[in-house]
Amino acid sequence: MPVKSYSRHMTVNHPERRARLAALLAEHDAGALLVTRGVNVRYLTGLASTNAALLVRADASAVLATDSRYLAAARRDCAEVEIVEARDVAGALVGLADRPAIEAHDMSVAAYRRLPGEPVPLEGLVERLRVVKDEPEIDALREACRLTDLAFAEVVPRIAPGMTERELARALETRMVEAGADRPAFPSIVAGGPNGAIPHHTPGDRPIERGDLVTMDFGALYGGYHADMTRTVAVGAPAGWQRELYELVRAAQRAGRRAVAVGAATAEVDAAARDVIAAAGHADHFEHGLGHGVGLEIHEDPFLRRAGAGRLDDRVPITVEPGVYLPGRGGVRIEDTLVTRAGGPELLTCTTKELLIL
Amino acid sequence: MPVKSYSRHMTVNHPERRARLAALLAEHDAGALLVTRGVNVRYLTGLASTNAALLVRADASAVLATDSRYLAAARRDCAEVEIVEARDVAGALVGLADRPAIEAHDMSVAAYRRLPGEPVPLEGLVERLRVVKDEPEIDALREACRLTDLAFAEVVPRIAPGMTERELARALETRMVEAGADRPAFPSIVAGGPNGAIPHHTPGDRPIERGDLVTMDFGALYGGYHADMTRTVAVGAPAGWQRELYELVRAAQRAGRRAVAVGAATAEVDAAARDVIAAAGHADHFEHGLGHGVGLEIHEDPFLRRAGAGRLDDRVPITVEPGVYLPGRGGVRIEDTLVTRAGGPELLTCTTKELLIL
Repeated sequence: MPVKSYSRHMTVNHPERRARLAALLAEHDAGALLVTRGVNVRYLTGLASTNAALLVRADASAVLATDSRYLAAARRDCAEVEIVEARDVAGALVGLADRPAIEAHDMSVAAYRRLPGEPVPLEGLVERLRVVKDEPEIDALREACRLTDLAFAEVVPRIAPGMTERELARALETRMVEAGADRPAFPSIVAGGPNGAIPHHTPGDRPIERGDLVTMDFGALYGGYHADMTRTVAVGAPAGWQRELYELVRAAQRAGRRAVAVGAATAEVDAAARDVIAAAGHADHFEHGLGHGVGLEIHEDPFLRRAGAGRLDDRVPITVEPGVYLPGRGGVRIEDTLVTRAGGPELLTCTTKELLIL
Repeated sequence: MPVKSYSRHMTVNHPERRARLAALLAEHDAGALLVTRGVNVRYLTGLASTNAALLVRADASAVLATDSRYLAAARRDCAEVEIVEARDVAGALVGLADRPAIEAHDMSVAAYRRLPGEPVPLEGLVERLRVVKDEPEIDALREACRLTDLAFAEVVPRIAPGMTERELARALETRMVEAGADRPAFPSIVAGGPNGAIPHHTPGDRPIERGDLVTMDFGALYGGYHADMTRTVAVGAPAGWQRELYELVRAAQRAGRRAVAVGAATAEVDAAARDVIAAAGHADHFEHGLGHGVGLEIHEDPFLRRAGAGRLDDRVPITVEPGVYLPGRGGVRIEDTLVTRAGGPELLTCTTKELLIL
C-alpha cells in the first residue's frame, strides 16, 4: 500500500519547518519531540509513510526512522535528516535525545508503555505549525480545488432523474481522478430529496427524482492537500420552499465568507452565518459548525464553531459551509474552501453559487 | 465525510460477537471493555463512524456513544444496544461500568490521561475475535475479490506501450468502482520495468515500454472488506531472465498456497514459499513477509512471516504474495487472497497465474 509523495508537486523548505518546531520545544522545556503522527512526519520531511517517526531535537537536528519499504524514498527525498532503518520506529529514536517528548494525542497507551523513561507527553505542537500554510501548500490546495470545480462543471450536466446517488458520487470521483487528482479527498456525499436533511448522508441507491434538491459534498486530493466543496442543485423547477431555503443558505454562506478576515475571531465568523439562519427561524436546523481548516487533513485546525476560541491568521485555508436541514423534507448546504489573506480572503472553489436548475 | 455501512450487504449477528468479547473479559478480570478503535466498533455493532465508542460489559450488555451526525444510523442499525449522544464518546462511557479496560493499542496517551480512574490497558481482544471470519464476512470478501478479478480482466487488454503507471492504476480503480466496489481497498501499486524492483512503488508518470514486466497490486473494497491481489504481466515477448523469474515466483506462490491449511504454523507457510526462492539463490531479493490477514482492514492478523508464531484457524482469509526484486532491473510478485477451510483453502482471487504476454 504505497503513499503519494507531494514533493512531486512542491518545493518545500522542510528544514525551516523543523527549525520552527525546535523553537517551540524550548517553551516546553523538552530536549526533542518524537513525531509519530504520519501526517506530521510528512509535513516535516516530505516522506509519506505508514511506518515512520521523526525525532526533532531542540537544536533542529533530526533523525528519521522508517522500515525497508520506505528507505529508498526517504533517502531520495529527505535531505539534511539522518535516516535509520527500523520497524519499531519510535523505539529506535527515543533514546537519541535527552528529555524527549512524545505526541500524546497520537501515541497509543500501549506504545507509550513500551518506551523507556516515560517521555513527556505534549499535544498539538506540529498541528499548531501546520495552521498557517506556505505558498507551495496553497498552490497544491488551489489545484485540488480547481480539479473539484472541473469535475462539478463536467458532471452536473449529466444529472437526470433516475441516476442514483451512488452513480453521481462515482461520476464526480472518477472525473476528479481522471483530471489529475491523487484520489477523492474523502468519500463524497450525494444526498437527493429527503436525504438532503442528513448532513453526512452516505450515497445510496435512491434514484434522483424530478423535484429533488441534490446536495453534493466532495473534493479532490492533490499533492496531499484536501479540497472541500458543497453545492446543492435543483432537478426540475424548484418549489417555493426549496428556492427560499436555497436563498437563505446562500445569504448565510455569503455572510460567513464576508466575515472571514485575518484577525477575525472564529466564533464571530460562525455567528455571521448562523445569525442569518437563526433570523429566519431555522436555528435548530443548522447544528454543525460553520467550517474547518483544510490541508494535509480534511478536518484540521482552526474550526469555525459557536463556542470556538481563537482568531484567524494570515494564509489559513478554511471552509465556510452553512446548511439548513428539514427532517423528512430535504436540505441545502453550500460550501467553499477559501484562504485568508491580508487583503481579504482568496476563494479557491470557484463554482457558481447561483441555484442551478437542471 | 460519511462512511459506508456494510450492513447493506450482510446479515451479521452482532450480539453474538459481543458475547464472545464478554467471555474474553473474564480472562482479564475486567468488568468491561471500552472499545474505541473504529473498525472494532464497526465489527461489534455494524456502525461505521469516525466518532463512536462502545462499552461492552462482562454480562454482554453494551452502550454505544456517538455524536449527532451518526445518531440516526446508530438507532437504525444497532438494535439491542443502548445509545447515548456525546462528542467525547470515551468520556461518556467510561463511568458506566466497574473495572473498565481500554484498548491500549488504540487510545492515545492524551485521551487516556483525560479519563478518570486509570482504566486497565488491554491489547488486541477484539482483533483476536476478528481473525476467524463468519460466512457473511467471507461472502463480502468473495465479492470484493470478484470485482478485483473483473477489473483485471477488463483493463489488462488495454495495457500498451506509452500508457503510464498512473493511468493504469486509475483504470483499474475506476473499473472496480464502476462494477460496484465501495472504493479501492488501498492505493493501487503499478510498477513497470525497473520500478518493479520496489515492492511499494507509487505509480508515476513512467510510460510502460515494450520489454517491461508490469506488476499490479490492487483490490476492491466491498461492504467494508478488503480484497488484495497482485499479478505481473509482460509487455512484449519476455527476455529469458524475466520468464525465469516469473516461473520462480509462480512456483514459490504455488508452494505457499499449498502449505495453507487449518492448523498450519504461519512460519511454515512462509517457509514453504521462501525456500523455493532461496533455493534459486534469491533469498536476499525477497525481504517482506509472505502474506497477511485481510478483512475489515487491509493488513490484519495473522501475518505469514519468517519469525511468526501461531497457527492458522479455519475460516481465516489471508494473502500469499511472494516476490523477487532485482534492484535496477525489475521484479515479479504474484498474490492471491484465499481463505482457510477444513477441506483445503478456498481461492478468492481467481485470475490466471499464467504469464500473460501483451
